Amino acid sequence: MKAFVTGAAGFIGSNLVDRLLADGHEVMGFDNLSTGHLAFLEQADATGHFGLCRGDILDPEALSREMRGSDVVFHLAANADVRFGAMQTRRDLEQNTIGTANVLEAMRIAGVPKIVFSSTGSVYGEATVFPTPEDHPFPIQTSFYGASKLAAEALIQAYAEAFEIQGYIFRFVSVLGERYTHGHVVDFYKQLVQHPNQLKVLGDGHQKKSYMYVQDCISGIFRALEHAQEKVNILNLGADEYCEVNASIQWICDELGLKPTREYTGGSRGWVGDNPFIFLDCTRIRALGWQPRLSIREAVIRTIDYLRGPTASTGVSEFSCDK
Amino acid sequence: MKAFVTGAAGFIGSNLVDRLLADGHEVMGFDNLSTGHLAFLEQADATGHFGLCRGDILDPEALSREMRGSDVVFHLAANADVRFGAMQTRRDLEQNTIGTANVLEAMRIAGVPKIVFSSTGSVYGEATVFPTPEDHPFPIQTSFYGASKLAAEALIQAYAEAFEIQGYIFRFVSVLGERYTHGHVVDFYKQLVQHPNQLKVLGDGHQKKSYMYVQDCISGIFRALEHAQEKVNILNLGADEYCEVNASIQWICDELGLKPTREYTGGSRGWVGDNPFIFLDCTRIRALGWQPRLSIREAVIRTIDYLRGPTASTGVSEFSCDK
Repeated sequence: MKAFVTGAAGFIGSNLVDRLLADGHEVMGFDNLSTGHLAFLEQADATGHFGLCRGDILDPEALSREMRGSDVVFHLAANADVRFGAMQTRRDLEQNTIGTANVLEAMRIAGVPKIVFSSTGSVYGEATVFPTPEDHPFPIQTSFYGASKLAAEALIQAYAEAFEIQGYIFRFVSVLGERYTHGHVVDFYKQLVQHPNQLKVLGDGHQKKSYMYVQDCISGIFRALEHAQEKVNILNLGADEYCEVNASIQWICDELGLKPTREYTGGSRGWVGDNPFIFLDCTRIRALGWQPRLSIREAVIRTIDYLRGPTASTGVSEFSCDK
Repeated sequence: MKAFVTGAAGFIGSNLVDRLLADGHEVMGFDNLSTGHLAFLEQADATGHFGLCRGDILDPEALSREMRGSDVVFHLAANADVRFGAMQTRRDLEQNTIGTANVLEAMRIAGVPKIVFSSTGSVYGEATVFPTPEDHPFPIQTSFYGASKLAAEALIQAYAEAFEIQGYIFRFVSVLGERYTHGHVVDFYKQLVQHPNQLKVLGDGHQKKSYMYVQDCISGIFRALEHAQEKVNILNLGADEYCEVNASIQWICDELGLKPTREYTGGSRGWVGDNPFIFLDCTRIRALGWQPRLSIREAVIRTIDYLRGPTASTGVSEFSCDK
């Protein structure tokens, strides 16, 4: 199989590239390196079966030119800074919605028949059903990030209806693991490296969130590609558990041997559009024979181990220079 | 109240402008006249309380400049050619999604606190519940039009969450009446004027659709503005009935005194993404005290009368909307 991966130099993208190569596939990566790291692709480079195009998903011509001959597009390039949507109202629209429209149009032109898309549990807004199933009542969006991903999902569905394109839409919980570069674990870790006795926490710490280990996430994607064959396949992908932000902080502190004073900004939400409770119903993907191997606690600790450096027992510790 | 109406020279827009003026409001229209007609605004012009800016919703600066000082934006400008999404894959994205993003950003900049948005029952894709309520299970999009309107809804919701903007999202069935310029009634009418004995019908004629008279539609909007006060108000707006396309054809032919041979293109869908059954649950708007005055049949006949009338070319000199 020849795979085309947008966002190949990112956290999930580069891990996906390595897994695809390990499974014997040819991979062409596409990344503008705005947030990705070339170092994440050193292992891929060494295989001789990987190529990287330094391009932008806002450049439709580059997309269709580079993806020609591919069997599947893994579209992971995105603005993933969920928190700042209201401060940069155009960014999610451009990077996530218009970018996805460009990827789809390039697929139509280049004749690529399959797209895997990294959507998000944020499309449920503030869900009213927990765990939240894929057919949750028509949600109301609460973030620019969720809105932009929902719009991208809708475009994939319209393309699947109109053209010979099959869609795999994964609604992720937050993903943790090696090469993790942004999100609450790295925020807390960085704070504690600077000030081991003090930790600033957005919200009241009682936000309930779900997380997943990056290799489990990739296994779920592969499982679905093999076993789900609808025109449009929509699948939640996450753990069958959730934790309070406070619990996550405790695991991090225990792992680092620290007991900082916690300073809460207050309120049940960490930022505008923050969702105080994320817990996805993953019955659908589990019915395909997938289950996560790491618990949320294990995924958090694995991430801290990675961030701490070369002592990590993860197989990618050589990239810790990019932490 | 000072109202800003995008798509003011269009079918619904110009009728809305007239009603707003009749109710004593000041109105600024905004239209690029790509599909709108200046003639539809002659009545408005004569009031002395109406201004028109010939601008494009893809021009953010013009939008924020012109809407400054308005109390509410009625955002009706859109690509409404539902059928051709798959042939012009970019148009719905630009006109409906990006256009709405521009309107919202202009509102934020200009400090306009309220938006009324013309969405569509098409956002339910191929619904599984009939009549279809607003909280129908999370739908899968089947048309570029529906996808683009869903994306616009999501943007309105994100802006409402982040800023002091209140949203009124109306999911319309197809609207009929005076100044109606595109859709199945005008298509059939035009065909029959040219070839009174022959009628080409997309699909098998058994598609079940719901329609609404334009003045009923506007009354529904006004009712909701007065009585619904959520941050985001989502309301289906349509008749409590549906008809087969074949029934609609019969009413049209009876009204015109014609008995054409019908030639069906076949299949349960008229085009890619056509929805074989649209029937919205309007309990929510009815609970606010609104009900349509015209039946679907009456709305179809009213539309044919308008198309036949001495004003059929421009549709305004006799102001048949007020009859």
